[in-house]
Amino acid sequence: MNDKKMLIGMQIGNGYGAQATSWMADNVDVRNYTNLDAHVRYAQAAERGKFQFLFLPDFLAQSQKTDHDAPLLTMDPAITMAVMARETTKIGFAATASTTFNEPYNLARTFKTLDVISGGRIGWNAVTTSDPASAANFGAQVADRDTRYERAHEVVQIVQALWGSWQEDAWVADKDRKIFADRSRIRPVNLQGRHVASRGPLEIPPSRQGQPVIFQAGGSPHSLALTGRFANAVIGATFTIEDSRRQRANVRRAAEQAGRNPDEIKFFAGIMPTIAPTKREALDRRGQFVEPGIRQRVRYLGTMLGLGLTADDLDRPLAEAELAAAQANPADPRSGTALQIAREGWSVRDILYHGIIDYHPSPIGPAEVTADHMQEWFEAGACDGFWLSPDVYEDGIDTFVDQVVPLLQQRGLFHTDYEGDTLRDHLGVDYQYGANH
Amino acid sequence: MNDKKMLIGMQIGNGYGAQATSWMADNVDVRNYTNLDAHVRYAQAAERGKFQFLFLPDFLAQSQKTDHDAPLLTMDPAITMAVMARETTKIGFAATASTTFNEPYNLARTFKTLDVISGGRIGWNAVTTSDPASAANFGAQVADRDTRYERAHEVVQIVQALWGSWQEDAWVADKDRKIFADRSRIRPVNLQGRHVASRGPLEIPPSRQGQPVIFQAGGSPHSLALTGRFANAVIGATFTIEDSRRQRANVRRAAEQAGRNPDEIKFFAGIMPTIAPTKREALDRRGQFVEPGIRQRVRYLGTMLGLGLTADDLDRPLAEAELAAAQANPADPRSGTALQIAREGWSVRDILYHGIIDYHPSPIGPAEVTADHMQEWFEAGACDGFWLSPDVYEDGIDTFVDQVVPLLQQRGLFHTDYEGDTLRDHLGVDYQYGANH
Ligand SMILES: Cc1cc2nc3c(=O)[nH]c(=O)nc-3n(C[C@H](O)[C@H](O)[C@H](O)COP(=O)(O)O)c2cc1C
Ligand SMILES: Cc1cc2nc3c(=O)[nH]c(=O)nc-3n(C[C@H](O)[C@H](O)[C@H](O)COP(=O)(O)O)c2cc1C
Repeated sequence: MNDKKMLIGMQIGNGYGAQATSWMADNVDVRNYTNLDAHVRYAQAAERGKFQFLFLPDFLAQSQKTDHDAPLLTMDPAITMAVMARETTKIGFAATASTTFNEPYNLARTFKTLDVISGGRIGWNAVTTSDPASAANFGAQVADRDTRYERAHEVVQIVQALWGSWQEDAWVADKDRKIFADRSRIRPVNLQGRHVASRGPLEIPPSRQGQPVIFQAGGSPHSLALTGRFANAVIGATFTIEDSRRQRANVRRAAEQAGRNPDEIKFFAGIMPTIAPTKREALDRRGQFVEPGIRQRVRYLGTMLGLGLTADDLDRPLAEAELAAAQANPADPRSGTALQIAREGWSVRDILYHGIIDYHPSPIGPAEVTADHMQEWFEAGACDGFWLSPDVYEDGIDTFVDQVVPLLQQRGLFHTDYEGDTLRDHLGVDYQYGANH
Repeated sequence: MNDKKMLIGMQIGNGYGAQATSWMADNVDVRNYTNLDAHVRYAQAAERGKFQFLFLPDFLAQSQKTDHDAPLLTMDPAITMAVMARETTKIGFAATASTTFNEPYNLARTFKTLDVISGGRIGWNAVTTSDPASAANFGAQVADRDTRYERAHEVVQIVQALWGSWQEDAWVADKDRKIFADRSRIRPVNLQGRHVASRGPLEIPPSRQGQPVIFQAGGSPHSLALTGRFANAVIGATFTIEDSRRQRANVRRAAEQAGRNPDEIKFFAGIMPTIAPTKREALDRRGQFVEPGIRQRVRYLGTMLGLGLTADDLDRPLAEAELAAAQANPADPRSGTALQIAREGWSVRDILYHGIIDYHPSPIGPAEVTADHMQEWFEAGACDGFWLSPDVYEDGIDTFVDQVVPLLQQRGLFHTDYEGDTLRDHLGVDYQYGANH
């Protein structure tokens, strides 16, 4: 038996849960969007579960899509992360920030500050921001992919160089010799790219892990090149074991092509579990978040299966003839799972309650269902760990920690305590200081 | 007797004190630059003293000028402010951020988030950033003043409009009606300036004080126009009562010219006190921070007085003939005070120990000296309050709170408790939401 353990990172956004309607749940305080006490409580619950990190998504535009949805994001990831880091001691954090709508000096400064004050527990998910509404908030239009990624390479390179510009031995701090810091060891970087430039230095000493870890999300060829060069962790969007293995292999190859050890990049597969004592209870729990938008979803399910479904069909299972005619739509990778669940004979409503239109695989049922899913994917080499999106943070994190984590530990799949103190320790990746090439 | 009370704001930077060499003091932990526990302790001490706000300066370049100086800044003001706000309940905060090297959408988001999570205790000191080293960190050169301020007007206007874009009644948060927020009341701002633009909206509800307060520092005609239009608080650089009255009158006139009530802008005069039981002890306390750079300072003192002084002159008072020949250099507004102290017969070293080359007036001696200075300036209408720069935070804040604050309170000059919960309450300025014109 391989003694390699899986890693677990948890998505944290608006204060309610990964389901856009989770703010409506009975046990949820509707004011949590602006209440960081709630975020702190969730971070502490995740730390109790020994998760390796929390991950804060970010988009630079309104994320509330209908009046009944909540925004998906925390108000400002850097601020939320600062507060959560202060009120935890071990768990790591990765926050998303745009390479397109931030200057490298500002990014370098904010993330290194967070890394220093948290004792080396911070990562940066570098995204290029491709949605027009975000660009419009900066009076801009979305540039083509080549341009966005060319800038992203420059930005990450400059940020890492700035991180290294205060050399590791520069902070003398000697009262007798009256030397605070040796300015000859705090050097400009003088980097000038096509899109961005910075002279430096950045006036921040090393953190306990040197500098923040780079994260990436997504898997386009452009994104893979950035990942291969800079990232230590990648979040994939993947719905089958085969696809996840393929994505993971791509990421590892990208690392090799950039001259790095592929084990230095950890690949994460998403999961959105709903856990309850029985399958029926789990479906009903998940169902409450599906209901507000169910009329649109039933039509979309029809598209996934090549059938014309409407709200009138909600309370019946698919007929034999429909199941025979149904075909998984190759344009949506979730269609295969939808068809498989339809064949189990559930009503159309219950098919939707399985979370099949959610953006990650959704194990639904008692804790074993989620643990089994994770074990199967992990042992198949589909991922190095999981990116967990709890349906409702308020009780969903504790349920996972109390019920799934012990199963994973009993099966020898998940660690029983943190191996070290920094995010690099948690991920098992090397210390790095400054630009790596 | 007028029952108007003075306001007190305190500068907080690197974790040591306002003196660049204060990190060397015996009672100071040299690691405080990166230790936010220290900043929190200082914020709590200032809150115990019922100060209206803490003020975080900011520059976007290396601020350590010699090996024996510490940086003057906190690593990242927004992060430091987030942490201090979480761990206090009443005191307000104002952080400096550049209108030139930040995008309005990012500024609006970070400051409104801070305002919401702190319960309405945040201000933004909007500066245009005129130093070349900062510009170089963004691959830029310093633009002329017209351009910088034209951009600043656009940035502040867009920021305030974004702050108002989530209307005050938009957050319905009604589980029964399944409405999180009414998107028809979260509206784009569609502002397009010459330098910056943003569509909006910003997805953040009102804070307890509506939105952050605008601060300004400095008094050039350009800066006055920005102040008059947007600010509720101004920090001056002023060395005499007459000059301070003039600056305050300028600020009030600028408000009137912008069609605002001049009482809506509070003018703050700086002070850098050193407090000890006796004058001699206070001079020696201050002197330890003057000593590391004293050879340069003695020469500069010569320039202030029109005399050729060197380090050889340190341990003697000025001779009769020198005093007769000395003239206060009109190019430096501190020269008058330097000459007056020289005439009191102090040695050149002790003249320098009076802090006469510091960037704000420096009352030196027992607590009464500082209290008398504040009373005199306040009663002369030189200011609405003071911007306090303690020499060493570690004990300097507590000393001020325990010794100066009670004197001011006994004299009826300073409040004995907070009047409300928000920064606007503390400053006595009106609620504002959105752009004011
Ligand atoms: C799990 C996951 C999380 C993501 N989170 C974010 C995010 O928070 N913010 C963002 O702008 N993009 C996010 N993305 C989008 C990707 O970073 C990337 O921009 C997207 O896949 C488009 O790729 P492209 O720019 O190469 O076309 C995420 C993608 C995945 C798979
Ligand atoms: C008390 C005081 C504090 C200031 N703090 C800052 C600061 O933290 N950051 C900054 O860039 N400028 C700061 N300034 C500078 C002014 O905002 C302004 O840029 C400077 O006076 C030059 O003015 P001008 O741009 O109109 O020429 C400060 C000025 C004063 C008087």
